[in-house]
Amino acid sequence: MPQYNPPLRDMQFVLHEVMQVTEAFKEMPAFAEVDADTVNAVLEEGGKFAAEVAFPLNSSGDRQGCTLDRTTHEVTAPEGFKAAYAQYVEGGWPALSCDPEFGGQGLPHTVNQCFYEMLNSANQAWTMYPGLSHGAYEALHAHGTPEQKATFLPKLVSGEWTGTMCLTEPHCGTDLGLLRSKAEPQADGTYKITGEKIFISAGEHDLAANIIHLVLARLPEAPAGSKGISLFVVPKFLVNADGSLGARNGIHCGGLEEKMGIHANATCQMILEGAVGTLVGEPNKGLQAMFVMMNAARLGVGNQSLGLTEVAYQSAVAYAKERLQMRALSGPKAPDKPADPIIVHPDVRKMLLTARAFAEGGRALAVYTVLQLDKELNHPDEDVRAEASDELALLTPIIKAFLTDNGWIATSHCMQVFGGHGFIQGTGVEQFVRDARINMIYEGTNTVQSLDLLGRKVLGDNGKKLKAFGKKIAAFVEEEGVREDMQEFINPLADLGEKVTKLTMEIGMKAMGNPDEVGAAAVDYLRVVGHLAFAFLFAQQAKIALDKQGSGDPFYTAKLNTIRFYFAKLLPETASLIRTARAGLQPLMAMDEALF
Amino acid sequence: MPQYNPPLRDMQFVLHEVMQVTEAFKEMPAFAEVDADTVNAVLEEGGKFAAEVAFPLNSSGDRQGCTLDRTTHEVTAPEGFKAAYAQYVEGGWPALSCDPEFGGQGLPHTVNQCFYEMLNSANQAWTMYPGLSHGAYEALHAHGTPEQKATFLPKLVSGEWTGTMCLTEPHCGTDLGLLRSKAEPQADGTYKITGEKIFISAGEHDLAANIIHLVLARLPEAPAGSKGISLFVVPKFLVNADGSLGARNGIHCGGLEEKMGIHANATCQMILEGAVGTLVGEPNKGLQAMFVMMNAARLGVGNQSLGLTEVAYQSAVAYAKERLQMRALSGPKAPDKPADPIIVHPDVRKMLLTARAFAEGGRALAVYTVLQLDKELNHPDEDVRAEASDELALLTPIIKAFLTDNGWIATSHCMQVFGGHGFIQGTGVEQFVRDARINMIYEGTNTVQSLDLLGRKVLGDNGKKLKAFGKKIAAFVEEEGVREDMQEFINPLADLGEKVTKLTMEIGMKAMGNPDEVGAAAVDYLRVVGHLAFAFLFAQQAKIALDKQGSGDPFYTAKLNTIRFYFAKLLPETASLIRTARAGLQPLMAMDEALF
Repeated sequence: MPQYNPPLRDMQFVLHEVMQVTEAFKEMPAFAEVDADTVNAVLEEGGKFAAEVAFPLNSSGDRQGCTLDRTTHEVTAPEGFKAAYAQYVEGGWPALSCDPEFGGQGLPHTVNQCFYEMLNSANQAWTMYPGLSHGAYEALHAHGTPEQKATFLPKLVSGEWTGTMCLTEPHCGTDLGLLRSKAEPQADGTYKITGEKIFISAGEHDLAANIIHLVLARLPEAPAGSKGISLFVVPKFLVNADGSLGARNGIHCGGLEEKMGIHANATCQMILEGAVGTLVGEPNKGLQAMFVMMNAARLGVGNQSLGLTEVAYQSAVAYAKERLQMRALSGPKAPDKPADPIIVHPDVRKMLLTARAFAEGGRALAVYTVLQLDKELNHPDEDVRAEASDELALLTPIIKAFLTDNGWIATSHCMQVFGGHGFIQGTGVEQFVRDARINMIYEGTNTVQSLDLLGRKVLGDNGKKLKAFGKKIAAFVEEEGVREDMQEFINPLADLGEKVTKLTMEIGMKAMGNPDEVGAAAVDYLRVVGHLAFAFLFAQQAKIALDKQGSGDPFYTAKLNTIRFYFAKLLPETASLIRTARAGLQPLMAMDEALF
Repeated sequence: MPQYNPPLRDMQFVLHEVMQVTEAFKEMPAFAEVDADTVNAVLEEGGKFAAEVAFPLNSSGDRQGCTLDRTTHEVTAPEGFKAAYAQYVEGGWPALSCDPEFGGQGLPHTVNQCFYEMLNSANQAWTMYPGLSHGAYEALHAHGTPEQKATFLPKLVSGEWTGTMCLTEPHCGTDLGLLRSKAEPQADGTYKITGEKIFISAGEHDLAANIIHLVLARLPEAPAGSKGISLFVVPKFLVNADGSLGARNGIHCGGLEEKMGIHANATCQMILEGAVGTLVGEPNKGLQAMFVMMNAARLGVGNQSLGLTEVAYQSAVAYAKERLQMRALSGPKAPDKPADPIIVHPDVRKMLLTARAFAEGGRALAVYTVLQLDKELNHPDEDVRAEASDELALLTPIIKAFLTDNGWIATSHCMQVFGGHGFIQGTGVEQFVRDARINMIYEGTNTVQSLDLLGRKVLGDNGKKLKAFGKKIAAFVEEEGVREDMQEFINPLADLGEKVTKLTMEIGMKAMGNPDEVGAAAVDYLRVVGHLAFAFLFAQQAKIALDKQGSGDPFYTAKLNTIRFYFAKLLPETASLIRTARAGLQPLMAMDEALF
């Protein structure tokens, strides 16, 4: 059976000892009162909800899936999902990091990040129902009219209603410029929207009284391509002036996808037949408005794989300590038992430590990145906001792609620890692998993320954002480089920093000759920069762990072991990645299309 | 929809142009008459069976799965499976590489290897039903009494009956020394076997009239551990003296596993309650006899992932040529269309070419290895047999682990090419990923394979087998190193060869201090040697392609492009693997078990 205990100690370490988040919160008026005790208490309670309410529904939800009533077009989520959601709403969890003006609790996104990591560990498919609401909330909060805000935000914040993002159509996912859904203006200022959307997560379900769809569509005579797309808010039930629910709107679920994973989340084909909506933001600028949601969603997807990495790790560790099979090559370690527990075998440990290092590295990077989001939105100093915004922009595609690729590797390793028992449903670990797979695809495939990083975020501003990040690393290297006990971490970090600088310039030069060079190097490049970020944050953690390892708390010893494992066994991946990135475009383009 | 066309041209290239198999066949009396036309004709017909009969049942079989009648203990395979098997038997396919003495066609295993690659591409789950029979056939052929052979072999060869391997028990898979099933001798020379087996592929089904189980169990007072295990043949239906089917034996299916993949193959819990069996081989030497089956099965499992790699590649190529999404970064390539086909994007090509190179590399290595099997069994010269036997022993764990790890990477890449459409069942590609996952686990996990390679096959004989393989590479390097147009292949091959030698010695030295060093390095080491074998065989293929590229046949141009891609983008993985292998044991063992 899968195992999950909220990793509160490591979260506290990252939040308080490494990032000193409450010091950062004090600089932001909105969070000045948020102290460590509050953060810890929220996460402790949140962890209980995840482990005790959401987690027990994970396997059963996967087996049962969702059902569509083809007459009523209504979708029923698996057993227990609705009750768990009611408990979630009751506990006020949807409001955690929302604006107090609309009923939110006004806590930093950093806290919500850790809470959602735990929800994702517990039950990714369930978590997507409330999770999608955040995107709708963010888009309406940033771009909605006062009336739209008043109508929708309090209900999204309370969790009475949930939200979706309706972007993809059968012929376009990545390339939204091709979309065809149409919005016809009505005399009353509303629009009637017609079209077909696919892959709409949580598009229809029985958890909430209303579902607020954010829908991309084209106005009449809108320009072709991505500059002619507008954003609309389309509720499942129209909302009366007094806030009560009115008529059923012309949007319904036309079918559910049968998928490899996340079975318990309803992935809907949504049919719009003259559905009534109102415009969000300016006409033809829907994609920009949508990007507010997309960026939040990308961080959220990285967080999904972080959660799966942690729960897969914990489950595999429990099994590896208990399963007896063969003796250690160096001689029996449990001579009183018929065989040794498999955790004595070096490669079993390698698979476990890979997952552990990816979980701990991912957690630190995610918290670091979301702290920049809090600063971008709340810091009083404009320069700090701008700096945070740049760093957030740089790291968002890395969170999405690096953490989800790592999650795929980690969950597969954890499954392997179970041997044949990992391939059958009873142990629950194969579900983590299947669920993890979608995270590399949706909200922009990992290839798209890598192009966003290298093409837009790095080369697009001549390396400004990357240089700013590099300066932070250089300052740390400079400051800690004098410590002898930090050499083992500082040296490879400094070395990789230099290599990234060189590699970036090299690709930039080549890309001036042929922009496709960006596409040829981007995926390898993203993983290299991901490792740079991990190495930077692990080196910071090592410093603290070295300082405190004499405290008697074995947490710091374990932390150092994990970090040393990372530097010895995972970071060296960059050696190959740099080579293959440098090998460039030619080996990819030489093959004539007809010869494939 | 998935696509599959048997890759006959590449098979012919490997068989005839690279390996010149018919020259090798001529040296073996049993195969002296097997000419290229025969081989090609068999594969052409075999490819038709795979593509036209087995392939159309792959998706439907996955969705439908197997059903167990809990009253009769009978299992029904998915619709169409039984009819396809009847057609397979009708066509004489089970007999392809079997001994003519028992009704076989006596063709080389090399031909069967290519035939089974196509079957695996078409339908891995279906192919396991006839596939498992080969293991039972081999074990009985090698170790059976004349009576056992007469009773079982003709029916296994004709395909009227199928076979299984019953090894695993709930508490032991890798560690068969722990097994508990008991065999009680009876006065008539038979044994009554009692116990519980799990994970028995094709353990019960409705495709054949009888199922011949090869079962490991303990005799009374047998020594503890792996030296007290004996092998028995236990038919589902007892066989009368005249060969007709007698009473139902005391072995039945107690349950079917719900699995991540290969849904259409029945993975059975088998309950033995005084089942009547006869001893195969000597008492207490069952594991040795079983290894005959295991080694064949390991080659077979590598072949399963080779097949999946090929079909996933073909399916993804078809989609990438047809799916329109975004423009090339270097400007529109299909300006007449609303967007470019995604095959213009460099990273899409990288994913496709990775799968292609893994398929072509795997095919060459598998044919090369199985040709050694043919020589080991059939060559008149004892030295040649011994040499072939050594090479087969060395390469078998590489085929199993390297090809299945590559298959996992390749099928996942091919799924990624489909974007969100890859995650849903309709496109069929996610099934390849799920099916591919078991191949890294069963017949000895890939960790076990790596220990077999490094611990037993390489260090176990002081590098003798590896050196012999290295000599072949050195001779090729020496001979072709003078050709300027071969430098791009010869130099990295020679370089990697030297590195493998150095790495092997280094690990060997360390292992003398602590045998666990073998376990720490083995998985990385196996991939490095796998790449060495690929690089060697690709360099040989490059030579031929260079010589023939002026012929006007675009096959040779495509082959060179694939090989150049391999050397530029895949072989560099060895740079990281060598580093992590050298990082050794300490980073894995530092963590106290309690701190995991």
